[in-house]
Amino acid sequence: MGPDAVALGEAVPAAFCTDWSGAPPVRPRALLRPRSTREVAAALRICHAHRVPVVPQGGRTGLAGGAVPRADALAFSLDRMDAIEAVDAAAATLTAQAGATLQAVQQAAEGAGLRFGVDLGARGTCQIGGNIATNAGGNGVVQFGMMREQVLGLEVVLADGTVLPMLRPMLKNNTGYDLKQFFIGAEGTLGVVTRAVLRLRPAPQELRTALVALPDYPAAVALLQRLQAAFPGALAAFELMWADFFTTSLAWLNQPSPLALEHPLAVLVDVAGGDAAALDAGLQAVLEQAMEQGVAADAVIAQSQAQARSLWRIREAPTQFPARMEPVNFDVSLPLADIGGFAERCVQALAQRWPGHRTLRFGHLGDGNLHLTTDARSLPGLACVEAAHAVEGIVYALVEEMGGSVSAEHGIGTHKKPWLDASRTPQEVQAMRAIKRALDPLGLMNPGKIFD
Amino acid sequence: MGPDAVALGEAVPAAFCTDWSGAPPVRPRALLRPRSTREVAAALRICHAHRVPVVPQGGRTGLAGGAVPRADALAFSLDRMDAIEAVDAAAATLTAQAGATLQAVQQAAEGAGLRFGVDLGARGTCQIGGNIATNAGGNGVVQFGMMREQVLGLEVVLADGTVLPMLRPMLKNNTGYDLKQFFIGAEGTLGVVTRAVLRLRPAPQELRTALVALPDYPAAVALLQRLQAAFPGALAAFELMWADFFTTSLAWLNQPSPLALEHPLAVLVDVAGGDAAALDAGLQAVLEQAMEQGVAADAVIAQSQAQARSLWRIREAPTQFPARMEPVNFDVSLPLADIGGFAERCVQALAQRWPGHRTLRFGHLGDGNLHLTTDARSLPGLACVEAAHAVEGIVYALVEEMGGSVSAEHGIGTHKKPWLDASRTPQEVQAMRAIKRALDPLGLMNPGKIFD
Repeated sequence: MGPDAVALGEAVPAAFCTDWSGAPPVRPRALLRPRSTREVAAALRICHAHRVPVVPQGGRTGLAGGAVPRADALAFSLDRMDAIEAVDAAAATLTAQAGATLQAVQQAAEGAGLRFGVDLGARGTCQIGGNIATNAGGNGVVQFGMMREQVLGLEVVLADGTVLPMLRPMLKNNTGYDLKQFFIGAEGTLGVVTRAVLRLRPAPQELRTALVALPDYPAAVALLQRLQAAFPGALAAFELMWADFFTTSLAWLNQPSPLALEHPLAVLVDVAGGDAAALDAGLQAVLEQAMEQGVAADAVIAQSQAQARSLWRIREAPTQFPARMEPVNFDVSLPLADIGGFAERCVQALAQRWPGHRTLRFGHLGDGNLHLTTDARSLPGLACVEAAHAVEGIVYALVEEMGGSVSAEHGIGTHKKPWLDASRTPQEVQAMRAIKRALDPLGLMNPGKIFD
Repeated sequence: MGPDAVALGEAVPAAFCTDWSGAPPVRPRALLRPRSTREVAAALRICHAHRVPVVPQGGRTGLAGGAVPRADALAFSLDRMDAIEAVDAAAATLTAQAGATLQAVQQAAEGAGLRFGVDLGARGTCQIGGNIATNAGGNGVVQFGMMREQVLGLEVVLADGTVLPMLRPMLKNNTGYDLKQFFIGAEGTLGVVTRAVLRLRPAPQELRTALVALPDYPAAVALLQRLQAAFPGALAAFELMWADFFTTSLAWLNQPSPLALEHPLAVLVDVAGGDAAALDAGLQAVLEQAMEQGVAADAVIAQSQAQARSLWRIREAPTQFPARMEPVNFDVSLPLADIGGFAERCVQALAQRWPGHRTLRFGHLGDGNLHLTTDARSLPGLACVEAAHAVEGIVYALVEEMGGSVSAEHGIGTHKKPWLDASRTPQEVQAMRAIKRALDPLGLMNPGKIFD
C-alpha cells in the first residue's frame, strides 16, 4: 500500500481516533487508508491471518460510536476511495466508491439532472459507505425511504479478504439471497463496504414549503394522511415540532414566529410536483380544508425560496445543540398513533424527577421517527454522563413498554448497546450472532459494536 | 394439531404436490396445515428433533418450483393461517397471517381507504407469506418497489422451532441487523414466514392510462425518464411491448389496434395523481412534446375506465400463454440501457438456430425487467423439455455476458438452479451457503431449492 497509506501508533491523526458521538478518543494500533478494493482485500487477508481486529471508518459522523477505534485494532479509513465512478442518467443509477461524501454523490446526481434520495446534515463530511453501513435516514425518508432503499448493488470485502462483487445495477434481481441486505445497517461488523451502485430519483421540478400549526397530535396524523392522499409519492417532508422545540428555535434565531398564535405543535411540510399551478392549488386546497375542519389551526405557505429557507431554519436548530446545551439526544421510533402519547409521557416522567428539565421534541413524523433532546444542564446535581444515563433509563423504559425502537436511524454502535434488548428479543439477538459467526468466524470486524 | 390438520402419504391432495411451475408432482411424506404460529413452531421442533426436511407452501403459484414437495419431506401449508389481523389506517399498516391471499390483503387495504403496493396476476390464489418468501414483483414495482419494500415487520419460525417476532411496525428501526431482510426472497430455505406487518400506500385519487407507440428502444428509455420527471413518484406502470407481443395479443383478442400504424414498440403507461385536471394536462403535455420531438410515434389516452381496461387487456396476453402455446418463459433483468440490444440479440440468436421460432417480448421496463416467451411448438424437431433447455442455454448465456439477472422476480427454486452461476459469483454463493448453515445447520428448510 505504500508508506503514505499507513500511520502507526502515535502518528495516527486525532481525527481518526473518535467520531461525532462524543465517545472518548481511542488511538488504534495503526490507521490504514487503502486506495482500492484490491488493497482493502489484501490488507484484510493479512489482518485475518494475524487475527488483528479491524474498525472500518467512513466520515466518522455517526452518533452511536460505531466508528471509534479500539487500541488493539487497525482503523480502516475509506476516505481515499472517494471516486464517483459512473452516472447513468437513463437508468438513473450512480456508482461510487465508499469514501465519496454524501454531498459529492448528491452533486453528481444533480449534474445529471437527477437527485439522490438521502440527505442529512453531515452531508459534506459523511461518506456513502458509512451511510450504507449505518442505513442512514435523514430528511428524505418519507418520500424515498432509508439508505437501504437507495442501494441497488454493493461491493463488500469480508473479514478474510473475500470480495463479494454484488454490483449488478438492476432494481429486480431474485437470484438467491439478497446478500447486500445483510451488510446494509450492519455497522461494519460483517464486512467492509467498498463500492455501491445507487438508485437516483427524478429531480423535483417544483417544491412548495408550508408551516402548519396544529391543535393536537391526532391532527398531525390526520394532516399527514391527507397530504399523502393528495400528493401520492410526492410528500417530501413532514417535520413535526413540539412547542418546546419551536419556541426555543425562534428564540435562538431571534426571529418572530411566522404563526399568529402559540400552538402545541407545528409541522413543516414539503411537497413536490411537476406542475407549479397544480401544486399551489392542491396544497392550498388541502390546507384550507384542514383549517375549516379544525385539523389545522394556522398555516403559512412560503411564497419564495427565501421564505421556504427561512421556515426550514426553524427546523435546523439541532445544529446549535452542541453550542447551546449539553444535549442528551434520542432517536426513537414508535407506531405512528403512539408518538404523541409517548412524547407527552416522556416529558411528564422527566418532570417528575427534574421539575426544571428542558427537553425539546421534534421529528420526522412521516417516518414515525421522534427525536428528543434533554439539556443535561437543566438536571441539577448530576454530572453529564450520569445525567445521560438517568434520562436514558427513563426514556428507553417507555420505548420498551410501548413497543418502539431505541434507534430509528442512528444505529447501535457502542452507545446504545446497553439498550439493544429494549427493542430486540433474545431470540433475535441470537440469530444476529449466528449471522455474525457465519460471515466473520474469528470476530475481527468492528468487534464490540452492536453486541459483544 | 388435531387429525384434520395432517394428511399422510396417499391422503395428501394432489394440489399440494406441485405448483404453477409445471414441475412434475411429488407426494410428500405428509402435509401439515397448522393454524397458528405456535403450531408451526411445535411442528418444526419435532421435525428438527427427527431430522425431517420441511417444504413450506403458500398459494403454490410460483413459477420456479420453490414450493414443490420432496418425497422425504413434510409439506407445510400456511393456508389455514389466513387472518387479516389488523389494519391501522392512520399509520398505513396492515398485519396479516402468512396464508392470507394477496387479494384479501388488497381488499382489506382498500376497505381502509388505502392500497397495497404489490399486485400480480395470481392475486386470488397466491399468499402473502409466499409473496414475501419469493420477494414478489408484479405490476406496482415501478412506483412502490418489490415485496421487500412493503414489509415493515415479519414473524418467522426457524428450522429448530425458534420464533423470531420481528413485528415492530416502524419504517425506521436501526437496532442491529435488519433480520427480516434475510428471510424475504429466501424461498423458505431459512425459515417459515408466519405473519407480517405490511406498509400500505395512499389510494390514488385519479389514474390515467395511455398507450404510446415508439420508434425504437432509446425512445422508450427517454419517455420513461420524461414521465418520471413530470410525475415524480406517481408513474404507476410503464409496460413495454415489442411488436411481436403486441400484434399477437391483438390477434388473440380479435381486436383492431388502437394505434394507426404498426410500430416496433408500444408502451402502456399509468400515471396517478390527486388532481384530475392537472393529471390530464400533464400527461397530454408530456406526450405532445414527445411526439413533436420524435420520441413518441403515436399515442392514445384512455377517455374512460372502460377504455383503460381495454388497453390493459392487450398487456394481459400472458394469461393465455398456457392455452395457446407451449411457453418457455423468461424473467430476466438487465441494466436499463442494455435491454433493447439484449432483446434484439436474443431473437437473432434464436432465429439463427430456429428460423421459424415464435418469441414474444414484453416487460416491466420501469423496473428493468424483461419477459420473453418462446413457443416450444415453433422449434421443430425438439420435445418440450429439450426445447426449453436449448432456448434457456441461448438466452441465459446472453444474460451472463451482459451482466444481467436470470431471475428478476420469479426466484430460483429448482427451475433456475442450473443457471444461478450465470448471475452470481462463486464467492456470493459461498456466502449464501454460510448464511444457510448459520440459520439452518441441519439443512432441513426447503432443501434443494436455490442451491444444493
